[in-house]
Amino acid sequence: MSYDLVTFGETMLRLSPAGQERLERAGELEFRAAGAESNVAVNAGRLGLDTLWTSKLPDSALGRKVTNTLRSQGAGVDVAWSETGRQGTYYLEQAGRPRGTNVVYDREGAAVTTATPADLPLDEVADADAFYTSGITPALSATLEETTADVLAHAQDHDTTTVFDVNYRSKLWSHAEARDVLEALFPDVDVLVVAERDAWEVLGVERDAAGIAQTLADEWDFETVVVTRGEEGALAYESGDAVTQSAFETDTHDPIGTGDAFVGGYLAERLDGGSLADALAYGAATAALKRTIPGDVALVTPAEVESVLAESGGEISR
Amino acid sequence: MSYDLVTFGETMLRLSPAGQERLERAGELEFRAAGAESNVAVNAGRLGLDTLWTSKLPDSALGRKVTNTLRSQGAGVDVAWSETGRQGTYYLEQAGRPRGTNVVYDREGAAVTTATPADLPLDEVADADAFYTSGITPALSATLEETTADVLAHAQDHDTTTVFDVNYRSKLWSHAEARDVLEALFPDVDVLVVAERDAWEVLGVERDAAGIAQTLADEWDFETVVVTRGEEGALAYESGDAVTQSAFETDTHDPIGTGDAFVGGYLAERLDGGSLADALAYGAATAALKRTIPGDVALVTPAEVESVLAESGGEISR
Amino acid sequence: MSYDLVTFGETMLRLSPAGQERLERAGELEFRAAGAESNVAVNAGRLGLDTLWTSKLPDSALGRKVTNTLRSQGAGVDVAWSETGRQGTYYLEQAGRPRGTNVVYDREGAAVTTATPADLPLDEVADADAFYTSGITPALSATLEETTADVLAHAQDHDTTTVFDVNYRSKLWSHAEARDVLEALFPDVDVLVVAERDAWEVLGVERDAAGIAQTLADEWDFETVVVTRGEEGALAYESGDAVTQSAFETDTHDPIGTGDAFVGGYLAERLDGGSLADALAYGAATAALKRTIPGDVALVTPAEVESVLAESGGEISR
Amino acid sequence: MSYDLVTFGETMLRLSPAGQERLERAGELEFRAAGAESNVAVNAGRLGLDTLWTSKLPDSALGRKVTNTLRSQGAGVDVAWSETGRQGTYYLEQAGRPRGTNVVYDREGAAVTTATPADLPLDEVADADAFYTSGITPALSATLEETTADVLAHAQDHDTTTVFDVNYRSKLWSHAEARDVLEALFPDVDVLVVAERDAWEVLGVERDAAGIAQTLADEWDFETVVVTRGEEGALAYESGDAVTQSAFETDTHDPIGTGDAFVGGYLAERLDGGSLADALAYGAATAALKRTIPGDVALVTPAEVESVLAESGGEISR
Amino acid sequence: MSYDLVTFGETMLRLSPAGQERLERAGELEFRAAGAESNVAVNAGRLGLDTLWTSKLPDSALGRKVTNTLRSQGAGVDVAWSETGRQGTYYLEQAGRPRGTNVVYDREGAAVTTATPADLPLDEVADADAFYTSGITPALSATLEETTADVLAHAQDHDTTTVFDVNYRSKLWSHAEARDVLEALFPDVDVLVVAERDAWEVLGVERDAAGIAQTLADEWDFETVVVTRGEEGALAYESGDAVTQSAFETDTHDPIGTGDAFVGGYLAERLDGGSLADALAYGAATAALKRTIPGDVALVTPAEVESVLAESGGEISR
Amino acid sequence: MSYDLVTFGETMLRLSPAGQERLERAGELEFRAAGAESNVAVNAGRLGLDTLWTSKLPDSALGRKVTNTLRSQGAGVDVAWSETGRQGTYYLEQAGRPRGTNVVYDREGAAVTTATPADLPLDEVADADAFYTSGITPALSATLEETTADVLAHAQDHDTTTVFDVNYRSKLWSHAEARDVLEALFPDVDVLVVAERDAWEVLGVERDAAGIAQTLADEWDFETVVVTRGEEGALAYESGDAVTQSAFETDTHDPIGTGDAFVGGYLAERLDGGSLADALAYGAATAALKRTIPGDVALVTPAEVESVLAESGGEISR
Repeated sequence: MSYDLVTFGETMLRLSPAGQERLERAGELEFRAAGAESNVAVNAGRLGLDTLWTSKLPDSALGRKVTNTLRSQGAGVDVAWSETGRQGTYYLEQAGRPRGTNVVYDREGAAVTTATPADLPLDEVADADAFYTSGITPALSATLEETTADVLAHAQDHDTTTVFDVNYRSKLWSHAEARDVLEALFPDVDVLVVAERDAWEVLGVERDAAGIAQTLADEWDFETVVVTRGEEGALAYESGDAVTQSAFETDTHDPIGTGDAFVGGYLAERLDGGSLADALAYGAATAALKRTIPGDVALVTPAEVESVLAESGGEISR
Repeated sequence: MSYDLVTFGETMLRLSPAGQERLERAGELEFRAAGAESNVAVNAGRLGLDTLWTSKLPDSALGRKVTNTLRSQGAGVDVAWSETGRQGTYYLEQAGRPRGTNVVYDREGAAVTTATPADLPLDEVADADAFYTSGITPALSATLEETTADVLAHAQDHDTTTVFDVNYRSKLWSHAEARDVLEALFPDVDVLVVAERDAWEVLGVERDAAGIAQTLADEWDFETVVVTRGEEGALAYESGDAVTQSAFETDTHDPIGTGDAFVGGYLAERLDGGSLADALAYGAATAALKRTIPGDVALVTPAEVESVLAESGGEISR
Repeated sequence: MSYDLVTFGETMLRLSPAGQERLERAGELEFRAAGAESNVAVNAGRLGLDTLWTSKLPDSALGRKVTNTLRSQGAGVDVAWSETGRQGTYYLEQAGRPRGTNVVYDREGAAVTTATPADLPLDEVADADAFYTSGITPALSATLEETTADVLAHAQDHDTTTVFDVNYRSKLWSHAEARDVLEALFPDVDVLVVAERDAWEVLGVERDAAGIAQTLADEWDFETVVVTRGEEGALAYESGDAVTQSAFETDTHDPIGTGDAFVGGYLAERLDGGSLADALAYGAATAALKRTIPGDVALVTPAEVESVLAESGGEISR
Repeated sequence: MSYDLVTFGETMLRLSPAGQERLERAGELEFRAAGAESNVAVNAGRLGLDTLWTSKLPDSALGRKVTNTLRSQGAGVDVAWSETGRQGTYYLEQAGRPRGTNVVYDREGAAVTTATPADLPLDEVADADAFYTSGITPALSATLEETTADVLAHAQDHDTTTVFDVNYRSKLWSHAEARDVLEALFPDVDVLVVAERDAWEVLGVERDAAGIAQTLADEWDFETVVVTRGEEGALAYESGDAVTQSAFETDTHDPIGTGDAFVGGYLAERLDGGSLADALAYGAATAALKRTIPGDVALVTPAEVESVLAESGGEISR
Repeated sequence: MSYDLVTFGETMLRLSPAGQERLERAGELEFRAAGAESNVAVNAGRLGLDTLWTSKLPDSALGRKVTNTLRSQGAGVDVAWSETGRQGTYYLEQAGRPRGTNVVYDREGAAVTTATPADLPLDEVADADAFYTSGITPALSATLEETTADVLAHAQDHDTTTVFDVNYRSKLWSHAEARDVLEALFPDVDVLVVAERDAWEVLGVERDAAGIAQTLADEWDFETVVVTRGEEGALAYESGDAVTQSAFETDTHDPIGTGDAFVGGYLAERLDGGSLADALAYGAATAALKRTIPGDVALVTPAEVESVLAESGGEISR
Repeated sequence: MSYDLVTFGETMLRLSPAGQERLERAGELEFRAAGAESNVAVNAGRLGLDTLWTSKLPDSALGRKVTNTLRSQGAGVDVAWSETGRQGTYYLEQAGRPRGTNVVYDREGAAVTTATPADLPLDEVADADAFYTSGITPALSATLEETTADVLAHAQDHDTTTVFDVNYRSKLWSHAEARDVLEALFPDVDVLVVAERDAWEVLGVERDAAGIAQTLADEWDFETVVVTRGEEGALAYESGDAVTQSAFETDTHDPIGTGDAFVGGYLAERLDGGSLADALAYGAATAALKRTIPGDVALVTPAEVESVLAESGGEISR
């Protein structure tokens, strides 16, 4: 069997107090697992693709917590089990204004930071329709910067479509560092996903969404550029044409992972043969549903996405 | 002792994840008991009436969970204990837009579906001031369709006021099926409660609330018709006169059971001798309070309802 | 890929109060998924085999709760999704003496009761090294009685070793009913697992463990007979030789699923080429570990089983 | 309707940390309601009697928590609602040796301490077969000392059998104070229940159980004396004859309320016409079951008690 | 070491159901400790002051729960441990409109109501920069009325700035009672904090905020008057000049303790040498943060307050 | 103020599933803070000493969780807040035989591993009566090995009694590594605490407890040697005399931290002037109580320890 989508990146354990309690007073923490690349594998996997998440994990109960969680949620898993290196974690405090949600990363020294191409199922990458990773991965270590480049190139060599989400994280690197590394990867990227603000601040493209997409596509010869704009929706650009999609109304319960839900939905539809416009809509509907669900992934069904697209959600169904 | 109000119907166990968690990932479920007719008995019982809920339950810990819950909340209970048949359950996932709250029924083969008049305390029905059931009951089985008809007729024969809430459930039957069955029952109904949308879609009365009430009252010779309109409030029609009531503002925490809270409050005031207008207001206030309370019933006191009517709710009282 | 072990049977949702609370008072319930045949697939899958559980489930959030759980715990899953039929559940109250642990089944009308061979991945059965089911499966419906017979025969036809655990459940059928059905299946069984008490009461073999094994092997031409004796350990008989194994000491936290842990451990070692004695020991160690773990499965690692065999468990490791 | 058993006394709210956590660190507390006299009403009510608990409670959510709980568990409730006085509470820390379980009472000023006969349903006492209270009640206030005497006398005047459990609590009064008050009540008591240790330390009868029973029966002309001896069982004495009963083996989960479970079981059987020996056995079985159940009452069924008497408890029933 | 701020008052245990559950149905309660004067000590202590809360507590696990909690949150504690008197508690039900949040006090007979100056660390009061108490303290008992007066006078004698928050509680006393007592204390108060509504209803100053401040300052010769106006912000008046501060936008999660957060923030900045305007802003930012945090105190850091002042809160920081 | 006891070492966050659940399946974790040296500071602090725990922590919500917890439990805290370095954590799975309790350390790179004497309050060490650390501290990093030596020497120079617990952890270093480091520290140690097994395996003293104590005291000129023997009790040796103490019977709920409870109790009594025998008894009683309490510390009162010594524990006190 070959996969529709293979993703590569770090998945961390997420420890968070219930409700809006503070870490320093909490007596118990929710215990989940999440990471941008596995989120995308899960989200797309639930919506019809055969997906595989690949990474490197410590051979411990903590590493197994990660794989158990991902398999449970619908992604395939192929990891290198390591005797050294930690399991990355992060602590999350959710809050509204003016406190805001806060993340305390505790991911230094994670096993994945030593992952080389030899740790990864390169055959699966080569056989897959598409390969996805994000800017978080090369930000984690020099080794991962190199590995990301190698795997993207390997995918390109085997005609696997490469999808890359800029996903800038200010707690990992500076704008300038990110720009240097990312631009070195762009020649091997087919589809670029970038938040409008990241395009402005990291890539230095100070235009509107359509301008961002066109500028980047022209400069780096991307096949497709998708610009996400939060509550303003998204825009996709391909072969000189741009399509836009507004965001669906949503009663937000947990905003974490909205972007990954969008990408998962987009890829599920696009790799299934949908049009650029349909893929954007599918992504937007998945992102809206995500915000009603606790945790980092869009634990939804295709029927639920289609119900949003058909505008029939929001009432009690009984 | 004779009861002010006797109700008859199915009460199910309600299993629901905390917050907005999904059933497929939840590791524990809240465990409550609820049903339209017992909700009304509880709601009216808390607000001053002597109420009795009658039904048929399996003789098991699950059946006892139901009776324990109802007695705790303030309703009398008189059930036939059955050696056969299941305890009906339903699974509830609460969510905002665009996911929406979803109910998964697991109520087939419930003991109550075999309930005949012989299982019920007909003397209590005959002695009561009023008898209440809803359209859910005859929808559950052919036996219950017949039993509902028999008990309504029995009540009529003994001058017990019969109150019937259309309460259409699309997961139980079609519009056409419902209409046929309900119209066969209407001749034995004194007071009809119907949601505006059910009047349109099920009963085919495509008019505004006042028109619905008048049309139905004229056609079926109802003593009273109450039309509920959700956030638009309610209207009651009696002897050619209509009174209306707007809904009270509410910060909704759990919308399930709002309609039953309205009916419970309405009946508590009306059977206590209140005017049609006062009963509507009492119902609307009870419904507004319900939405601040988790679970299916309005666990309130008369003083709290009166406080809403006096517009003094909503601040911290200390 | 062909599987080492394919299993077939019903997996139910398990709803249980925390600690020793009673169902009729509990306000929340633990929500797990379990069944003898999936337990064995999980237990053996964690200990090194490639295992697949097959069944029929309702296409709902409840059915997905089952598959999510099993995949998370390490078994492969291949199910027919059904539009009709319920998801079987059971309610569990745990208690010590003299109350005792009590199970309330709510499994009538489950989707699996309509499963025919056409619903099952017969190719996987044919390709597997071994196929496992238990006496619970044919007890659930006439259809399943027939399907069990057909699939055992199919396995036999393709040289897949058939393993059958008598697993008598008094709440499902009588001794006499069970005996008739089971004896009709025995000609297609290679390896029989039977509890000593079931041999006495259901199969009518009133001898000691060695006698039971020899009698049954002779009568039905079983390749192997394994007799389990609870705290007394187990005995295996093959080609005229019997080996015995005592139980490991354990501080019991949750006894449910001990037998399935034993079978899972036994098969993991036996199908991996271990001797009859090693397989018995592996099964006993897995069973002892299971009793320290909440829920129905032995959520353990091969290293933990080996640690028990090396008698080094029971202290704080830090 | 006349009740089989009416009881009178204080019911407190019980606040306790989960497991063996300490109050000073606990972030949440279990919230139950319990008291000796309502425990007996619940326990006997579940085992077949029509029982009524009477008392005085503050008219607040806390008072309603008490009545809701008792009705839920199967006792009738008739209370005077008071605008003054607190709701008594107690904090409970459970622990094994050497810490031991500890109770922190917070019951001063409870509404019940002002209860006079005028607050109580004296007609129900007069019509009942039996009336029960314990030594805790007169210990709570001078008013209650007087009320207890008056109600016992009232019961005697109307041929209601009076049952009194010494139930000495060292945190409420001294041995000498208790003896004076109790002995003033004894002339109006028909059935005395006393723990062996209380007979020794409070009543000053330093003999074995049979001697205690005979001495007290002779001195105070009790119809029946029941001496409880914890793990040593119990002895009942009537008309010069003594019968003894050993305790059933039990895996203790929560020992609180064992004595009340014994009395509830004893009275359920005795008032139903059972022999003294059968009543002792019924009480002992109920007490053994209680110890497997969290909280203060024996949330059991007659079938479970009978199963203990038939010695069939303790295994998994499925 | 001398403290920047010493506070004196009652701290109660707070028992509240999760979410919006009702007390009469809740099976467990959150267990916290809170009181206006300890809230202020905690809030100011977290924001940089050395603070000490003084009071009188029962020598029990309940009293230790109070001191443990306060020390944990960052306040110093110096209490007289009492062998008599209760630990005050309150029960809290949170709800939105129209039910509203409700408090059931159970604080009668608390040990603190007998506190005399001899129970308090008067030296610490004399050495401190400021002393704070509120109108709740003298409302609790005649003894506390006298003690409050004595301690304020003692502070004045030693040049400790006295800060007093009117903090009117309608469940403790009437407007007239409060006014009499408070006005007797005002001569020893340097800084008065008063809610606009309390100024109108209790003190009878029916003017706008600036007018209230000026009127009170003129009449009682207060050094500073701070008028709080809820969502309208606050005003401070000193030496004839008034400064105003609007409230920061906040997504309210738990409004309890907002006023104490304001005072804590105000004092932290003011006693650290900040201007009147900066102190108001600091107080308003702390109050806004408080509303995002469960419980009665602002469990925040100076950096978080400064982030609000810099208007950078409200997004996910990662 | 000078402290009775200053301790130095790492305190980690402890993450553990409820009951005996497995980490890889747990959906929430208990969140506590614990470490040998802070445990001793807490335990001795609760029993009457003024104690101070010193260390280095990351300046984050995680570091504050540590200090909040320790202050709440009764220890003083003086830490260097670090901008670099992690907060050490450990994951704990509790289980009985044969699984055994398992600890997964995640403490590499903790801020404390860079602590130098300059980070510590050396004046407080110099002024204290006693200083305590354990073999865990020098095992954590080369820096800490040096710091431990320096601080012990500093304490010695200022006549502060130095107390050292061998506390061997096999997951941190080998027997040989430990022995080398520890023996280099011994010349600056006054009081040595060592488990019998560590004496055998790490220090190579293969004698009985009395022999161990005498051998070590003679070789290293310790003032006092305390040998702990688990359920066999303990032995103390001083000036040529040995006293022994058996362990108190205990119903173990959580064994973690028993040794630290023993040391805390021992030091509380010994530094308060108690005899060697009384200190041993005090330590043993504290250790027995600890085992009834969840978490790593003995959250007890002096009265509870004295109650154990007076052998009056273990019953319900009400």
